[in-house]
Amino acid sequence: MTVLYQRVALIGLGLIASSMAHAMRQYGLAGEIVGHAKSAESRDIAVQIGLCDRVFATAAEAVQGADLVVLCVPVGVMGEIAAEIGPHLASGATVTDVGSVKGAVVEAVAPHMPVGVHFIPGHPIAGTEHSGPRSGFATLFQNRWWLLTPLDGADAGGVARLRALCEGMGANVDEMDVAHHDLVLAVTSHTPHLIAYTMVGVAEHMRRVSNSEVIKYSAGGFRDLTRIAASDPVMWRDVFLTNKDAVLDILGRFTEELFTLQRAIRMGDGEHLHAYFTRTRAIRRGIIEAGQDTAAPDFGRVPQGGEKGKG
Amino acid sequence: MTVLYQRVALIGLGLIASSMAHAMRQYGLAGEIVGHAKSAESRDIAVQIGLCDRVFATAAEAVQGADLVVLCVPVGVMGEIAAEIGPHLASGATVTDVGSVKGAVVEAVAPHMPVGVHFIPGHPIAGTEHSGPRSGFATLFQNRWWLLTPLDGADAGGVARLRALCEGMGANVDEMDVAHHDLVLAVTSHTPHLIAYTMVGVAEHMRRVSNSEVIKYSAGGFRDLTRIAASDPVMWRDVFLTNKDAVLDILGRFTEELFTLQRAIRMGDGEHLHAYFTRTRAIRRGIIEAGQDTAAPDFGRVPQGGEKGKG
Repeated sequence: MTVLYQRVALIGLGLIASSMAHAMRQYGLAGEIVGHAKSAESRDIAVQIGLCDRVFATAAEAVQGADLVVLCVPVGVMGEIAAEIGPHLASGATVTDVGSVKGAVVEAVAPHMPVGVHFIPGHPIAGTEHSGPRSGFATLFQNRWWLLTPLDGADAGGVARLRALCEGMGANVDEMDVAHHDLVLAVTSHTPHLIAYTMVGVAEHMRRVSNSEVIKYSAGGFRDLTRIAASDPVMWRDVFLTNKDAVLDILGRFTEELFTLQRAIRMGDGEHLHAYFTRTRAIRRGIIEAGQDTAAPDFGRVPQGGEKGKG
Repeated sequence: MTVLYQRVALIGLGLIASSMAHAMRQYGLAGEIVGHAKSAESRDIAVQIGLCDRVFATAAEAVQGADLVVLCVPVGVMGEIAAEIGPHLASGATVTDVGSVKGAVVEAVAPHMPVGVHFIPGHPIAGTEHSGPRSGFATLFQNRWWLLTPLDGADAGGVARLRALCEGMGANVDEMDVAHHDLVLAVTSHTPHLIAYTMVGVAEHMRRVSNSEVIKYSAGGFRDLTRIAASDPVMWRDVFLTNKDAVLDILGRFTEELFTLQRAIRMGDGEHLHAYFTRTRAIRRGIIEAGQDTAAPDFGRVPQGGEKGKG
């Protein structure tokens, strides 16, 4: 493998940053990896387990001399970090981020980027429900999508190099427009997460009457929902606050569809329900064909992983 | 292991029945296993792959001489099957079912059960998104819950024997009231499935504008939802039609909660969102502690199984 960047600075040392560190090392993509985290404990762990060659107490120090800076902090603090590091960025450096929302990040970060620095927003669609510097692993990005949303007039060479890094870590790269990214993610990720949180909230309410049975018998659809809903609260708060318009649009559509199904249940309209449930199978097939999933029952998790399709 | 029933008749040869056949054979719990499926193809497969020692073209024939009859058909046809087999059941036989709804099954089946037959409704909370006689496997019930909802005055010996069968296949058994079962399942399984179907319906609509990107970038929360929504449409239609009251109750609560979160997004109320998302983590921890799931990232499915907690 080729070293693509001489010094990579990871700002924020959570799941994505630590997975990038492992992957860049494993595939020999970076000369030196330095990092910054707000928490001293995270910084200590990062050195101790070999994520970073050096860590710094401030983001401003961490980015000095780096030819790639990756912002791996919650979307809500990107602007603040950008303001801090702007004056310290090396000329010709590339700055990217891994935020789940792109419009708000561009708005917050771009004004702080000096002339001669290539700011190329990005979003790896990969993760687990865990967080922190110990949660990363080198194969997280294997065969996952990494979306880049270069701005008008982006430097083609800079984009190509960043793309090569993502591909070097095993990801498939696509480029798209910032606003389009935010709409697509509102459908595929943001709204589903909000719904999962909501359903878990309902169950918590019921749990009080049902004396923990909800948890005990959660092998049904509820279990996967809780996994989604266990994700980092700060990250998700910021996602919803910063991708507000697209999420509210999709939520409106969702509520309309749900009311239609609810009415079919109330009226005993079995034909409507059957037709609706049959259509969803086609979507499922599409996803398997698109290679984002496996057809193995229950993702191959047996026997512990039980339940789906049994209510 | 002890043979608990001399002849078990499986009516309907889908995922649950075929998994029971594999498990009963593996653990030596049944003398003979016979079966019936409406489809000649399913019957042929059942003999060919060794699920059943013998198959019958009608349910009435299949149950003759059986000391255990298991109804593994969609909830909506339980009554029809019960009417057919009633006159042919052996005296002293136990009849159980594996339907996801218990109130409607009891209403449909009980009137057809002759005196001297023990009708003990049941519900294994286990499954995958696949169906048909080839989809079963012996370990499906390992460490899953199997709920029994015996009626007033149920024969204690009959219940104990059926419980031993379920435990022999690796399940944990709990007994509860019929109505309570239907409420608990509405929360943990039925409503989550309806929501999954709805979200997939929304995405299908969006897909037309987004040219398959929804599918392509589905590694987010959407992917698990589609897996839920790929389940058998007939089974789920019947679940919603027959557990109508409990599902409509939970849906009402869900909509209220969702509107509260939606309003918080619209008003930019980050504190409300953060507090809500934080609470759901406790539920998640409860589920891990209850042993229905593993704390391994992404259920250990890496690298293919990517995404959670990353939007």
